[in-house]
Amino acid sequence: MRPVDLIRKKRDGGEHSPGEISTLVDLFTRGDVPDYQMSAWMMAVLLRGMTDAETAALTEAMLKSGQVMDLSAVPGAKVDKHSTGGVGDKTSLILAPVVAAGGLSVPMISGRGLGHTGGTLDKLESIPGFNVNLSPAEFIKVLGACGCAMVGQTAEIVPADKRMYALRDVTGTVESPPLICASIMSKKLAEGIDALVLDVKTGSGAFMKRTEDAEHLAKMMVATGERMGKRMAALITDMNQPLGRAVGNSLEVRECLEILRGDCQPMSKDLLDLSLELAAWMFYLGGRVESVDAGRSLAEKMIANRSALQKFCQMCREQGAHASFKGKPEDLPAAKFTAEFNAPADGFIESIQCEQVGLASLVLGGGRNKQDDVIDLSVGFELFKKTGDAVKNGEPIARVHYNDGAKLGSALAILKEAYRIGPKPAEQNRPLIKKIIESRKKT
Amino acid sequence: MRPVDLIRKKRDGGEHSPGEISTLVDLFTRGDVPDYQMSAWMMAVLLRGMTDAETAALTEAMLKSGQVMDLSAVPGAKVDKHSTGGVGDKTSLILAPVVAAGGLSVPMISGRGLGHTGGTLDKLESIPGFNVNLSPAEFIKVLGACGCAMVGQTAEIVPADKRMYALRDVTGTVESPPLICASIMSKKLAEGIDALVLDVKTGSGAFMKRTEDAEHLAKMMVATGERMGKRMAALITDMNQPLGRAVGNSLEVRECLEILRGDCQPMSKDLLDLSLELAAWMFYLGGRVESVDAGRSLAEKMIANRSALQKFCQMCREQGAHASFKGKPEDLPAAKFTAEFNAPADGFIESIQCEQVGLASLVLGGGRNKQDDVIDLSVGFELFKKTGDAVKNGEPIARVHYNDGAKLGSALAILKEAYRIGPKPAEQNRPLIKKIIESRKKT
Repeated sequence: MRPVDLIRKKRDGGEHSPGEISTLVDLFTRGDVPDYQMSAWMMAVLLRGMTDAETAALTEAMLKSGQVMDLSAVPGAKVDKHSTGGVGDKTSLILAPVVAAGGLSVPMISGRGLGHTGGTLDKLESIPGFNVNLSPAEFIKVLGACGCAMVGQTAEIVPADKRMYALRDVTGTVESPPLICASIMSKKLAEGIDALVLDVKTGSGAFMKRTEDAEHLAKMMVATGERMGKRMAALITDMNQPLGRAVGNSLEVRECLEILRGDCQPMSKDLLDLSLELAAWMFYLGGRVESVDAGRSLAEKMIANRSALQKFCQMCREQGAHASFKGKPEDLPAAKFTAEFNAPADGFIESIQCEQVGLASLVLGGGRNKQDDVIDLSVGFELFKKTGDAVKNGEPIARVHYNDGAKLGSALAILKEAYRIGPKPAEQNRPLIKKIIESRKKT
Repeated sequence: MRPVDLIRKKRDGGEHSPGEISTLVDLFTRGDVPDYQMSAWMMAVLLRGMTDAETAALTEAMLKSGQVMDLSAVPGAKVDKHSTGGVGDKTSLILAPVVAAGGLSVPMISGRGLGHTGGTLDKLESIPGFNVNLSPAEFIKVLGACGCAMVGQTAEIVPADKRMYALRDVTGTVESPPLICASIMSKKLAEGIDALVLDVKTGSGAFMKRTEDAEHLAKMMVATGERMGKRMAALITDMNQPLGRAVGNSLEVRECLEILRGDCQPMSKDLLDLSLELAAWMFYLGGRVESVDAGRSLAEKMIANRSALQKFCQMCREQGAHASFKGKPEDLPAAKFTAEFNAPADGFIESIQCEQVGLASLVLGGGRNKQDDVIDLSVGFELFKKTGDAVKNGEPIARVHYNDGAKLGSALAILKEAYRIGPKPAEQNRPLIKKIIESRKKT
């Protein structure tokens, strides 16, 4: 079959065989299917959909377009977590050391921030000397030495995704669940893991605004991972306001260090709860414990006895952190100036728009508009109040950390737009974890 | 709006404003929208459709991407016909001189054959010396001198269509009624005409196999032409077997000359009938007569009194035909050899597959696989029997005209596949003209 025949088949609602999908992806990766054919096919996929079998075949074809980590030299189960992204989402920095301290291996390959969302690699780089650019051999060495390693994607990992994603971005084909699923899952499976926990965000600050869309994607990813022999679970979690109390790279690492030191401030409680839950599932799916409850207890213990903190510091040393970094919040770079952001009225915080908070951070220099922008790692915000809290007019509700006074005004103006303050207390007890989708079978 | 936003809008089923469509087409024509965005947009158009207003806006934007003929120097109404294409379809060669002889102007810009379908330009080039490559000034001069001119498309006419069509061909986006409509109508309107008759073919040998699809496209083209101020009609006509008795370039011109000389053989009757009907509508829409019936009588008269034949010969001279061409069938090139194709069984011809007949002609050298193939103008077939006719085993039912004996065997084998002979007479009186879609208003 010629590529145009494959496009026509999908256009007409047909189901591709695994062979057809791997042919298309192989030809595209080699440059023998041009971008204009791939974009037409992806638009047809977006509008016609894919079966679970097609989605798994696409994931596998993309995975095979590059290198898969060979972690056979690292003993025991390898587990990871993937989040669909949000503002203030820094659970990876807590999970990796907690789960490694608990005895499993966590080979994390992460991304950088773009637009209003932050990226794990940028956060890690606020630790002086931390190197996220390890070769596969170095990555495996760190993983073997301390049970966790956190690095960026190399060009050898799923090259098909890099080209497909760039094309999707400019052809209106980002919002296709099967394409999203294959993009995420191929990259995660390239880590050579045995089990994966997904944190699928939903709400105003998430890519998936509607819970049913998040659930649809989550089920698709769980099914795809299962078909490829992995143990899977997905947590559908709330992203209607920033997670935790810090937004901004070094500020977020500080918040994680506080939590790992057992010093969880009230505004960080949602971050701790979600991290414990995700760690619990990682322990459970990795076969370390018999139940999620046992996993949660183990995670709590790893924090309480400071093993997770030690693990984090060990990983930082292994990945090149300067000797000056001892795992204390004050070891991280701080912005030169701070300013308070005050409540503009009496009332209750009805909502905090994540996208505006992320955008305000970007304006301060803490985020990227384009992939090669250089960012200021020390700027950002600390939130003193969150949704549902009562506030008084003029009361400080957040603190801005900044280096360039010229940028403060617009950041504050955007921040002001992010908050809605109303006369009534907001709906209470909106659950942080909305739903859990579990693997149908133990494998 | 950025191009990606326009793609997303159409993907989500939105309706474009005329400005959005002209922006997209302009940017694409200038090379500022890359092929991969245009192909994604066209796939979204194919799957989401377009309103009549969008289709008209696309037609107009494509039309404006190039030159529109200025025929103001040519007096009177200018009318043309467009056919969606079939095998043995040579009505243009009859219509142009008939309608010109009747007093209207017929500025015909035609195409070449590709695959199993023939092209008017190739047929004309079997007349020794006939030049289809006229400049706009030469075209207008011939049109002014004899009332009809038949030429090929220049690069200045609808350049957007050339690029869009090439892209549609390789991205599975050919079969979209709004895209087909805009492609056809923009090129026809670039001729500077006042009225247009469409011959929309349906049946096994047509692009539109189903009558309802042909009718849908016909209505769309009529509505688009009307919106742009043209008088329009569409005839939905049968293409379940080749039209007339000849297939092949010079053989088809011979058949037209016989008809123009008043010598219509029985197997050519469908061709004559359709030509008279299309000419009648051209006379009517062009305001030359008060009714289609009066138009038919005028067309018959132009053939009977030989004015149409004289007009054809005049046009040939004006377009460079050698003095040896006097308008007689024997003035045209003939193939060196002929062979009979005999009925393989007793019975009735149930069907003649147009695509196989066209393919057999292509195999003899009379058609093109690729756009730059050189073709043999003298080869082809004459049909002695058509659908519904009784045949006896071994009786000649067609004659093959060929130059290369090595190609005869495969042409005969393909021809054999084209005919289905069964024990019962086929359904009789399948109407040649299935439906007429007329302009809602006189303009």
